[in-house]
Amino acid sequence: MSNKPTLHTSLSPSLLHLYDVSNSIVVIIDVLRATSTIATALYNGARSVIPVDSVSRCIELGKQIEGITAGERDGKIAEGLEHGNSPFEYPREFIEGKTLVLTTTNGTRLLQMALDKNAEEIITGSFSNLSAVCDHIASMKHNVVLGCAAWKDKINIEDTLFAGAVISSVRNYFSINCDSSHIAEAMYAKAKKSLFEFMKKNEASHYHRLMGFELEKDIHYCLTNDLANVLPQYEDGKLIVR
Amino acid sequence: MSNKPTLHTSLSPSLLHLYDVSNSIVVIIDVLRATSTIATALYNGARSVIPVDSVSRCIELGKQIEGITAGERDGKIAEGLEHGNSPFEYPREFIEGKTLVLTTTNGTRLLQMALDKNAEEIITGSFSNLSAVCDHIASMKHNVVLGCAAWKDKINIEDTLFAGAVISSVRNYFSINCDSSHIAEAMYAKAKKSLFEFMKKNEASHYHRLMGFELEKDIHYCLTNDLANVLPQYEDGKLIVR
Repeated sequence: MSNKPTLHTSLSPSLLHLYDVSNSIVVIIDVLRATSTIATALYNGARSVIPVDSVSRCIELGKQIEGITAGERDGKIAEGLEHGNSPFEYPREFIEGKTLVLTTTNGTRLLQMALDKNAEEIITGSFSNLSAVCDHIASMKHNVVLGCAAWKDKINIEDTLFAGAVISSVRNYFSINCDSSHIAEAMYAKAKKSLFEFMKKNEASHYHRLMGFELEKDIHYCLTNDLANVLPQYEDGKLIVR
Repeated sequence: MSNKPTLHTSLSPSLLHLYDVSNSIVVIIDVLRATSTIATALYNGARSVIPVDSVSRCIELGKQIEGITAGERDGKIAEGLEHGNSPFEYPREFIEGKTLVLTTTNGTRLLQMALDKNAEEIITGSFSNLSAVCDHIASMKHNVVLGCAAWKDKINIEDTLFAGAVISSVRNYFSINCDSSHIAEAMYAKAKKSLFEFMKKNEASHYHRLMGFELEKDIHYCLTNDLANVLPQYEDGKLIVR
């Protein structure tokens, strides 16, 4: 038997119960666009990002701590909030030194599930911080669950591709007996020449959703490696860079 | 909007609740080896195959109807049953005119879930009867859910590949807005030159499990197209060929 730690991939929150979360580092993956935006805000100097699950909680907490409130519903800034989900809304000159209170649906829910299952550590991953995630989990010598946020529990292409990108980078550090991981890695191998073209050609549902909102620039950004290469770690209710 | 019927893929029984099963033909997929063996027994003249969920129920029903009882647990014929899960155990000279009572874990459970959700029609699919499944669903002009039985709810490579094989054959007949389907199709496109080599190279967990039981011959059979090209349809508790 191998002495390497294990790596598993949960392609949807509906599958998370199959994995031993309580003994693992959990990587929360919500490529379009929550975890890309989280990495970007922290890279650009935000003090922390607080993920919350509802617009009302976002407004309430934003007032309490004088934070920047952000979140979208159906592609528009939610009523009562100040900003949207695009990483381009959080350049250094705006976000440095501030706290971002961000409400997202899929990513926040998965993070809460990982908390409820007593994950040993929770970090967030996206192509924007691919290397930071890979370096961290390769060095920790600890079991890992890659948790895709998906879209209303339906598996999506972009989160699966990111899991595949991580696996193709760290596979030698782990014992991987997990078909979902092998599927993600094979997909990524096929797609990596141009993730954008792969999403387009395979009619990724999220590609269509965002292109409908004219967010092509966001998609390109969110599929590019290491533009905001920090490691967001969850601690006491917030995501921070140590 | 397209007037074509929809096609979705549920890569695990844990994801079936996300799809509109009650308005769909559901294809039960358990490539290694339940649905391959079901197609083979029916192709070789079995009157019907009755899927049951437990060994005790299999024994009981086998006695009542004087059927052939079959099923494995942990790679061995289960105690009290007569036969195993291999398609090679059901040649025409043995199975013709008889009723096979088969207990499997993953496939039977998924079939029961589809029944509970009032699927309009339930059929079983495997590479052994790929063309029969594709011809049927292409001609029905009806919504389809491809339901992978998976392994204890964990997504597996072989059921995903079969879903991909179906989709690559029937894609023009359906409106497919489903990333799981696109993932399956992309996987199949990558694997189709040699499904066996793909399984081996990607360390499919089921490949290892069965190779451990020296069932390489079964795996080759179960990954070959149209060796038992009939359409098993579920009616009044049994799978039959009309």
